[in-house]
Amino acid sequence: MKAEIITIGDEILTGQIVDTNSVWLAAEMNKAGFELVQITSIGDSKEQIISALDCAFSRAEAVLLTGGIGPTKDDITKQTLTEYFDTQLIFSDSVYQNILELFSARNLVMNELTKSQALVPASAVIFQNRAGTAPIMWFERGGKVAVSMPGVPYEMKNAMTADVLPRLKQQFNSQAIVHKNILVGGIPESQLALQIAEWEQALPPNIHLAYLPHYGIVQLRLSGISDDTLSLEFAINQRVAALTSILGKSIIAFENLPVEQILSRQLREAGKTLSVAESCTGGNIAHRITLLAGSSDIFKGGVIAYSNALKVNFLGVDFSDIENFGAVSRQVVEQMAQGVCLRTDSDYGIATSGIAGPSGGTPDKPVGTVWIAVCNRRTTLSKMFRFGNLREQNIERTTQMAFLMLKNFMETE
Amino acid sequence: MKAEIITIGDEILTGQIVDTNSVWLAAEMNKAGFELVQITSIGDSKEQIISALDCAFSRAEAVLLTGGIGPTKDDITKQTLTEYFDTQLIFSDSVYQNILELFSARNLVMNELTKSQALVPASAVIFQNRAGTAPIMWFERGGKVAVSMPGVPYEMKNAMTADVLPRLKQQFNSQAIVHKNILVGGIPESQLALQIAEWEQALPPNIHLAYLPHYGIVQLRLSGISDDTLSLEFAINQRVAALTSILGKSIIAFENLPVEQILSRQLREAGKTLSVAESCTGGNIAHRITLLAGSSDIFKGGVIAYSNALKVNFLGVDFSDIENFGAVSRQVVEQMAQGVCLRTDSDYGIATSGIAGPSGGTPDKPVGTVWIAVCNRRTTLSKMFRFGNLREQNIERTTQMAFLMLKNFMETE
Repeated sequence: MKAEIITIGDEILTGQIVDTNSVWLAAEMNKAGFELVQITSIGDSKEQIISALDCAFSRAEAVLLTGGIGPTKDDITKQTLTEYFDTQLIFSDSVYQNILELFSARNLVMNELTKSQALVPASAVIFQNRAGTAPIMWFERGGKVAVSMPGVPYEMKNAMTADVLPRLKQQFNSQAIVHKNILVGGIPESQLALQIAEWEQALPPNIHLAYLPHYGIVQLRLSGISDDTLSLEFAINQRVAALTSILGKSIIAFENLPVEQILSRQLREAGKTLSVAESCTGGNIAHRITLLAGSSDIFKGGVIAYSNALKVNFLGVDFSDIENFGAVSRQVVEQMAQGVCLRTDSDYGIATSGIAGPSGGTPDKPVGTVWIAVCNRRTTLSKMFRFGNLREQNIERTTQMAFLMLKNFMETE
Repeated sequence: MKAEIITIGDEILTGQIVDTNSVWLAAEMNKAGFELVQITSIGDSKEQIISALDCAFSRAEAVLLTGGIGPTKDDITKQTLTEYFDTQLIFSDSVYQNILELFSARNLVMNELTKSQALVPASAVIFQNRAGTAPIMWFERGGKVAVSMPGVPYEMKNAMTADVLPRLKQQFNSQAIVHKNILVGGIPESQLALQIAEWEQALPPNIHLAYLPHYGIVQLRLSGISDDTLSLEFAINQRVAALTSILGKSIIAFENLPVEQILSRQLREAGKTLSVAESCTGGNIAHRITLLAGSSDIFKGGVIAYSNALKVNFLGVDFSDIENFGAVSRQVVEQMAQGVCLRTDSDYGIATSGIAGPSGGTPDKPVGTVWIAVCNRRTTLSKMFRFGNLREQNIERTTQMAFLMLKNFMETE
């Protein structure tokens, strides 16, 4: 079954809010085996809603709409859908009771605007909103379906999970979709494409390959749609096996996860801890790790050694090495890694020192020059990189590369 | 001028990535005074690209496309646009030189796939990609414009800011657009709206007010469009002056800057330095500061004291205070701030300790409980906050509040 999403709201078109509903809905539809053809964002305008619906129905059997069903004047989705489906608004006592309960639970006083939320299109199937006042409306015509849901993300997610998705699955015979992700580390996208060209050529027409690059890592995704899940799974797994024998150790995971999550899992499984000594990455390595829930199991912390004094006093770097070789050098970055590992009593250390830019470059060490070191209690591995001129990108690339280096280091030590 | 955005990529329709390009482009177009009619996300399909372009051109004069111009087979935007605009691909030596420079700067080896990025549509105006290999293509037909940009956000943003937006303004803008931003700190949006309701009511019809909340800060943006720039500037400045007398010290800036940038400027002007001791923010405070170019002038670094051992050994926190009051307490966070300030020899210190979640909460200190301290060499100010249940938001809110607290502390010390 083909589906589309229409998100309604002026605030999306003015760039005031990120439309997070679409990506969540898209992922849910994808998992359920529905093929999403298009996502459309439009303003709170009757004309635009009608035109977007016409277009969507010309391509798809089901259209999910979010937004524009609040009680205020600028929300016109309900009125527009009522006209579009040639019906009229009637008062729903069950919706009214639902609103009353919600209001009494929150100690709110009902007013006329809120009461108008209990008006619903006569021909629509109504699902109660489990977390707000606007009811969910399911319209049908000629075997096609349009569902209007609230724009508030948790109200929408509640409705989608509890009512809308189960009914969509029941009504449309969904084909199975199978995805397999393969994360490849350390090979640029274009080089990877050449390396696997022959394998890619030989893919059957019902299996599609996508390249999704993320700073030093390329996510390869194989997707297929079929009535026969088992044989599709089998065919895709065969291709993945063939790919594995081509790429070998360059494959860092068979699922799509941020590399710090793969590394954290590896540390947790080994019962090991990590600390960081960050100069040019300025805390970003620690930030990325600590965004993960439960990271205190494997992460002790570390030092942001932005100034040379901190490199010496907090990490034990030899000041004469900073004078002789510069802060961006193998000698200094290795001492930083060893220092943080030892002084925090961690199993592993990561250190970075580089010239993130835009200033600070020299002919010898231009902007983008970065040293990364990873170590355990006995051994240190360090490497120099030449990234580009953009500060933010240099910080992100260094962070990503540091995670990759430690991951590989752990596997070969 | 009416505009539309088309984002291209199967990964958007499968919910694998959040389309952050759209919201950024929408905000930029809005600031430039262009009216965005629709945002459309489609897959890497020739048919869909052509149909979306036809629809967009039926409503708008300018269409911005992102994505689908990488070197691999699944990227078909360039080929499709070349056919759509009845032209053919030719080899561009200047694009090739740009790619060669990028590759030599990064020590990469050129291959045939990358070289194919230098093929460009003969009739398009080409802008060099300043951060990647795919060139930016500007097509025109019958006074309407389509611009194809990379899907990689920083490549797209670079191109949009440096080349595409200036040319759009030159080609389509006759009227002047004036924006004034006022950043208000520490007043929730709904309370702020009540406080300035009378002032807002009295705005003339050609001056529009937008509320843009960002974690503890509300950006108020006044915008006007007019043929007469001078009198519009004058009218807007008058309203800003009136607003200033209502809000007084709650206004933290008259331009839209991240709060860490305002704080960094304040530190630089005062010739002062800062260090941080981060527990629950896990490096994010340092990361946000060090994203700013030249931050080493005012930022020395600090300690990510995720484990209690680091709080004691690196910052001198009294271990018995951690035992008696817990790591998330006034006593501990104040010692962290003082410790990092003293031991790094900085003028100011910031410290955070809290329960970011999702686990780790207790009845006394539920998830979202956060202590923040700011200090100079003599005085320490600390405050407890109760944020929500979401880890990432708690980290962001704590970071933002810490910057605001130090900013206010510097002004009143």
